[in-house]
Amino acid sequence: MSKPKLQFWYDFASTYSYLSAMRIEASASAAGVTVDWRPFLLGPIFKAQGWTTSPFNFYPAKGRYMIRDIKRLSHERGLVFHMPSEFPVNGIKAARLALVGKFEGWIAAFTTAIFRAQFETAADISEDTVLETVADELGLDFARLSALIAKPDIKERLRAQTAHAGRIGIFGAPVFVTPDDELFWGDDRLDQALKWVRAL
Amino acid sequence: MSKPKLQFWYDFASTYSYLSAMRIEASASAAGVTVDWRPFLLGPIFKAQGWTTSPFNFYPAKGRYMIRDIKRLSHERGLVFHMPSEFPVNGIKAARLALVGKFEGWIAAFTTAIFRAQFETAADISEDTVLETVADELGLDFARLSALIAKPDIKERLRAQTAHAGRIGIFGAPVFVTPDDELFWGDDRLDQALKWVRAL
Repeated sequence: MSKPKLQFWYDFASTYSYLSAMRIEASASAAGVTVDWRPFLLGPIFKAQGWTTSPFNFYPAKGRYMIRDIKRLSHERGLVFHMPSEFPVNGIKAARLALVGKFEGWIAAFTTAIFRAQFETAADISEDTVLETVADELGLDFARLSALIAKPDIKERLRAQTAHAGRIGIFGAPVFVTPDDELFWGDDRLDQALKWVRAL
Repeated sequence: MSKPKLQFWYDFASTYSYLSAMRIEASASAAGVTVDWRPFLLGPIFKAQGWTTSPFNFYPAKGRYMIRDIKRLSHERGLVFHMPSEFPVNGIKAARLALVGKFEGWIAAFTTAIFRAQFETAADISEDTVLETVADELGLDFARLSALIAKPDIKERLRAQTAHAGRIGIFGAPVFVTPDDELFWGDDRLDQALKWVRAL
């Protein structure tokens, strides 16, 4: 019997998605669950809710709290966290590259490397130079990948994945979706989601 | 040495505050921590952020998710949860009564009884008859309490407590505040907050 799957919906601009990305493979593996990495874009989802930027920017007290909360959690987990000077960044190219990685089998390594570039080193992941450095580290040919994500196919797949997220009720990130369509929102729900999958 | 205190800031209309209220005394006691019950009103706090109602009403997908999330958590914890037909309700009288209970030593029992009336039986806690039933159950004289909360003193204390919440950066509920002024937002941060207090 194949292992049950947990979908992991994430946006590269999402700080709490970073926290989950850094631990989901280990947690899922310990639970006997496979991770189905699902990059999508929060931008269109927020826009449909009437937001033009991150809620952490709209509400300064909430934004300040979020940074403190993530620093505490990062510290507990032995992670480094630096808020990038621009937030949220445009992660569309990174998300398209991740989708290529899904078909080619390197999405997990690529996703964690991009999150680390952004939140450990505060690099601007909307920049080609940053994406290229990450690709190089993973032994990937950035020129080849750039050509792939410039084609309509990958762009359309990312649009479709984002539209699907909206249809199934995703309104933030990270979100974990179980085989029986339960949604769990937030890094703090990862263990509960894995427990749910195991009980199916 | 006296036990360290953890402030528990809650609003009676807050569903996640219900979850915390039902477990905080047991969790804090196990951690050797005393609970400092702090009722306040989210209304003025939300208003200062530009919201006229609960964010769960603004964003339907988020509101639907919240109900599902709380039902799952309630089930895990052996609690009953029914969403009241009106949400959020006006909890101002209940909050004023709770403040009287703080001075008279019955705030924990009163708070949990009000939360149960609202979320277990879906009663409208803005109604005097509901408040009176709860007071009766606790052996409290509702006529005496009603006279007390009609005076300016308790009203002013609740206003001051709510203003204080805003000043220290509270933007939602529940929030736990440690002796060294760390804020932890959300029922899912209770254990972390208690751990923090123990490490001081």
